[in-house]
Amino acid sequence: MSVVAQLREELGDIVDTDPELLEAARADRSGHRSTGQPLAVVHARDVADVQATMRIASQTRTAVVVRGAGTGLAGAANAGPGQIVLSMTRMDRILEVRPDDLLAVVEPGILNATLNAHLAAEGVWWAPDPASRDISTVGGNIATGAGGLLCAKYGVVRDAVLGVDIVLADGRLLRLGHRSVKGVTGLDLTSLVIGSEGRLGVIVGATLKLRRLTEGVICTIAASFDSVRAAASASSAVTAAGVQPAIMELMDARSLAAAHDLLGLPAPAAGTAQLTIQTDGPAARDEAERITAVLGAAGGVVAMTDDPLEGERLLGIRRAMHPAMAALGTTLIEDVAVPRSAMPAMFDEIARIEQAFGLSIPTVAHAGDGNLHPNFIFEGETVPALIWEAAAGLFRAAIRLGGTLTGEHGIGMLKSRWLAEELGEDQWEIQRQIVRVFDPQGILNPGKVFSDA
Amino acid sequence: MSVVAQLREELGDIVDTDPELLEAARADRSGHRSTGQPLAVVHARDVADVQATMRIASQTRTAVVVRGAGTGLAGAANAGPGQIVLSMTRMDRILEVRPDDLLAVVEPGILNATLNAHLAAEGVWWAPDPASRDISTVGGNIATGAGGLLCAKYGVVRDAVLGVDIVLADGRLLRLGHRSVKGVTGLDLTSLVIGSEGRLGVIVGATLKLRRLTEGVICTIAASFDSVRAAASASSAVTAAGVQPAIMELMDARSLAAAHDLLGLPAPAAGTAQLTIQTDGPAARDEAERITAVLGAAGGVVAMTDDPLEGERLLGIRRAMHPAMAALGTTLIEDVAVPRSAMPAMFDEIARIEQAFGLSIPTVAHAGDGNLHPNFIFEGETVPALIWEAAAGLFRAAIRLGGTLTGEHGIGMLKSRWLAEELGEDQWEIQRQIVRVFDPQGILNPGKVFSDA
Repeated sequence: MSVVAQLREELGDIVDTDPELLEAARADRSGHRSTGQPLAVVHARDVADVQATMRIASQTRTAVVVRGAGTGLAGAANAGPGQIVLSMTRMDRILEVRPDDLLAVVEPGILNATLNAHLAAEGVWWAPDPASRDISTVGGNIATGAGGLLCAKYGVVRDAVLGVDIVLADGRLLRLGHRSVKGVTGLDLTSLVIGSEGRLGVIVGATLKLRRLTEGVICTIAASFDSVRAAASASSAVTAAGVQPAIMELMDARSLAAAHDLLGLPAPAAGTAQLTIQTDGPAARDEAERITAVLGAAGGVVAMTDDPLEGERLLGIRRAMHPAMAALGTTLIEDVAVPRSAMPAMFDEIARIEQAFGLSIPTVAHAGDGNLHPNFIFEGETVPALIWEAAAGLFRAAIRLGGTLTGEHGIGMLKSRWLAEELGEDQWEIQRQIVRVFDPQGILNPGKVFSDA
Repeated sequence: MSVVAQLREELGDIVDTDPELLEAARADRSGHRSTGQPLAVVHARDVADVQATMRIASQTRTAVVVRGAGTGLAGAANAGPGQIVLSMTRMDRILEVRPDDLLAVVEPGILNATLNAHLAAEGVWWAPDPASRDISTVGGNIATGAGGLLCAKYGVVRDAVLGVDIVLADGRLLRLGHRSVKGVTGLDLTSLVIGSEGRLGVIVGATLKLRRLTEGVICTIAASFDSVRAAASASSAVTAAGVQPAIMELMDARSLAAAHDLLGLPAPAAGTAQLTIQTDGPAARDEAERITAVLGAAGGVVAMTDDPLEGERLLGIRRAMHPAMAALGTTLIEDVAVPRSAMPAMFDEIARIEQAFGLSIPTVAHAGDGNLHPNFIFEGETVPALIWEAAAGLFRAAIRLGGTLTGEHGIGMLKSRWLAEELGEDQWEIQRQIVRVFDPQGILNPGKVFSDA
């Protein structure tokens, strides 16, 4: 009996072979596609469905690709020939919200924004805010170790998860972590699963660490500079001055021009780069004034507002970046991160690579935490070799500056060939062995993160 | 040639067999001792010394116990017959402080308080503040995943380390993590090493995530309640009210009486329990007022001060707890943690266990994060079986309430027999297999955390 027939026999009509769905499962938002369609999509309704699927996969040595909303940017959830897709989007319940304990227990398929809309009614929120929050699942956020705009002040996913439940490759259920804030019982497998991109187990539940909603005014600052280097230096100066913005986004000249164009705004002066900064909490106004002074001293033309609508309009220019890039062609969004003081040096490296390869690389950055998103634009579905060569130059520059080739998008299939270069061969091999402890047959998301594990 | 002779030949007089030193290496601050003296203490001066020691240990299959200041409370650094002690206290340099990047690079042997004294001069600090901070090393803090008083607001060690360098059992050096705030490259081995209690590798360096020193006034609140349950409920009410104290410590009646006695203060009324709370940062006064109102409504007799000396005097009563217990006999300091709302229920469990076993269990708690330290007092060096039985009851109650048997002290040798009960057999076995990936011969801190690994 075929694998699909076995799945059908046990799971019935949640086993889906609709060709359109199979085709969609080949790709994520990176645009990258697998070599062909997977066998089937299993729409898991509960933990038992996941366990049944993994038992059949394990017995038949069939590869399983776990998928949330498919909004990843590294190809980690792309499924190919001979593989089962385990879709988590129907497991989207909020099982518990405890504002008094600042925790929530959820299924993995709930959208980040949907969860936060529910939490807001109880005065709390889950801080991780990837740009995809309206369309990405909490499980996917955990599997990729997602970041976002607010991370410098409010942390990344790793800081916001108390425990995860995972189903192992062989179908066993493990409950990792606990509901208490503190806990050092044995090895921290919860942290190990965060960002493991589907290689260690299927995330079927999570206990999330919440925050109180921040009260009071939000101040928004927009500052223009006559070069991206000046803007990057100014953002480093803000961090060095000891002020903690909630959001500090940087747009280089090409990004800013493209966003203005998309929104029908007047074109900025040539070469103009922009910082968009928000402060919140009890010291929001005071911090905004200090930041305004720092930016002015750094040569910026600065405007500040505490009007929420005007603030949202200013930030909207930054949020228009991705559609603006998409309007130009297919986009490879890169994701290097460096120490904050190395931001200007990283922009110099980008300029050097643009020159060396004859490319234009519009770049935005979460400047508060040194995470840059250089965008390569090209025609067609496949990233050209020249662009990968340029991207490799970016990765190496970031590592040289003390950073990493991925701040928040993950390795997936797109960057696995550079992983060992950052980790070193010894660490890379140890990581592969850890994967084998969880999944001895190597059926969970094979080929992702570790190219040949 | 004996192991000690081999070590001497390669490392010279940093190989120490002073009997007094060997004797001291048998115990930590838990009072628990190993069955006999170890072979030698190697005073590592640099990474090369650690690598040389591990290579000899690996070739001769000799067990190695890594030791910082020996202030642990779970016996994780206790060394016994046939074992080498690798002492890290001479590797105590600060290699780099970057206030602009909010990071510092240090060797593991530096004391937490010494580091923070240096950092303060640059306007920054490393937040983990175990009660032992004056005498415990940063490397030990990382190896145990230490907590402290300020954790609810400022996080634990896991939240404050960007990277660690470790020497593996076979002498190879691995550099884990990076200097950037964000980074999701492969599995998060930095987090895995934090709290691994010497089982995965020797921590020889760390890149620490710093914070700006908090500016402004510190408000201190002391509130008395007529029962520990009332005090615990009041502390839960503070958290539920959405205020975030920097410190929120709870002392039950026996603890409070013992501390007053030690300090020569008038005895509190029978049954009186106390909360000691500090707020800091820009909203310190406002938060202190809100907390005062919550505590008053919960039946507390409340005093508030913004005088730093008076604040330190009030907190000094809490800080006198450990010496006060030590004055009563040998102490087994337990370390359960529960969700904050379960604090009153956990105190009920403690009362039940006191009754059932005819024991008195003075208890203090980091009430802001639900971490309780019940103290068992006894005569002599060995924990009596009855006390272990009572402690087991505590552990199980904490786990039932959604918590853990150790919030911040670790498993060491004292709690390894309960580890599988919390983790479950499947997770316990996977953790052991991960240890073997790092240390196939099992020479690093054998018998600790995992009793028979």
